[in-house]
Amino acid sequence: MDAESSPDLIDPRVERSRRVICRAAIEELAEVGYGAMTIESIAKRAGVSKATVYRHWDGKLDLVASALATAKDDLVVPSSGPVRDRLTHILRYLAERLDDDNGISACIPALVSASQYDESVRDFHHHNSRRHRQVIIDIVQAGIDAGEITRSTDADLITEILVGPLFYRRLMTPTPFDPDQVEAIIDLVL
Amino acid sequence: MDAESSPDLIDPRVERSRRVICRAAIEELAEVGYGAMTIESIAKRAGVSKATVYRHWDGKLDLVASALATAKDDLVVPSSGPVRDRLTHILRYLAERLDDDNGISACIPALVSASQYDESVRDFHHHNSRRHRQVIIDIVQAGIDAGEITRSTDADLITEILVGPLFYRRLMTPTPFDPDQVEAIIDLVL
Repeated sequence: MDAESSPDLIDPRVERSRRVICRAAIEELAEVGYGAMTIESIAKRAGVSKATVYRHWDGKLDLVASALATAKDDLVVPSSGPVRDRLTHILRYLAERLDDDNGISACIPALVSASQYDESVRDFHHHNSRRHRQVIIDIVQAGIDAGEITRSTDADLITEILVGPLFYRRLMTPTPFDPDQVEAIIDLVL
Repeated sequence: MDAESSPDLIDPRVERSRRVICRAAIEELAEVGYGAMTIESIAKRAGVSKATVYRHWDGKLDLVASALATAKDDLVVPSSGPVRDRLTHILRYLAERLDDDNGISACIPALVSASQYDESVRDFHHHNSRRHRQVIIDIVQAGIDAGEITRSTDADLITEILVGPLFYRRLMTPTPFDPDQVEAIIDLVL
């Protein structure tokens, strides 16, 4: 592709504009919720026109999906080593991210709520949640295959037992899950 | 008190009206969320005037608190017997309730979301959640005291490990937690 036919891929100003709009979408989603958020309110927050937003995205959900997918994610998934260490690493990371109210974590309540009444948000939220969970399911499955996890419970349920308390704390209590406590959950499973 | 000074306590029509309004509040909260719900929309759904609602409650949160507190709750908390049986009973009940989209369960996403931006809802939601959780914490603590639970983990964290996966399924996945699977979690803890 040459620059003419696909300027988005090469123009740094366009890339910057996309980043600013994505950031605004995440902030707006966290602050006012999915229902109250509009392309207009996002454009205003980003300091661009509605037309600029619509040039890149079809609508709210398309933009939210894009914003969440490109949000800073500095997790390095450990692909080898003892399963205990790999689970500790990833659950500590998750606990820290869930406690960060400036990032994706602040959007989860809005997605949970909109999933109740908007089918397309629900599909997106569940798919997105599955995608993130799969990283841990794969490690748990590796642990089962290697004999490090000897529970008869399957990898899906074990993963939900591992992450459930962290999300419970974030969504149902005032106190985020202490990363130092993730080993207490892992101890139960291993 | 005589009937004159406190008619609410004795008039069955008033009691019925309160019940209808509470039911309407729960339905409205589940369907449109806390932010979009108004006393006017609740009154309309209940077929009463706004003034009737304001005669009983100060505002939205007061009404929601009242509605959730009086919602049908047929849980009989087992006060004796093996801790495993008591936990199985209460977690099965919780799994069933979380799968019932006509009841309180459908309001949880709205409360989670409003907690993100409304401090009084947040306080209410966390207090309410703590109150429900306390029933399980007490059973877990009894199990620790009786030596049935020998984990070094405290009763609060054990309770979050027990209920976390059930709420995770409700809020982050399309599939409710199967009541038959609660024993797999209890096995991990006992």
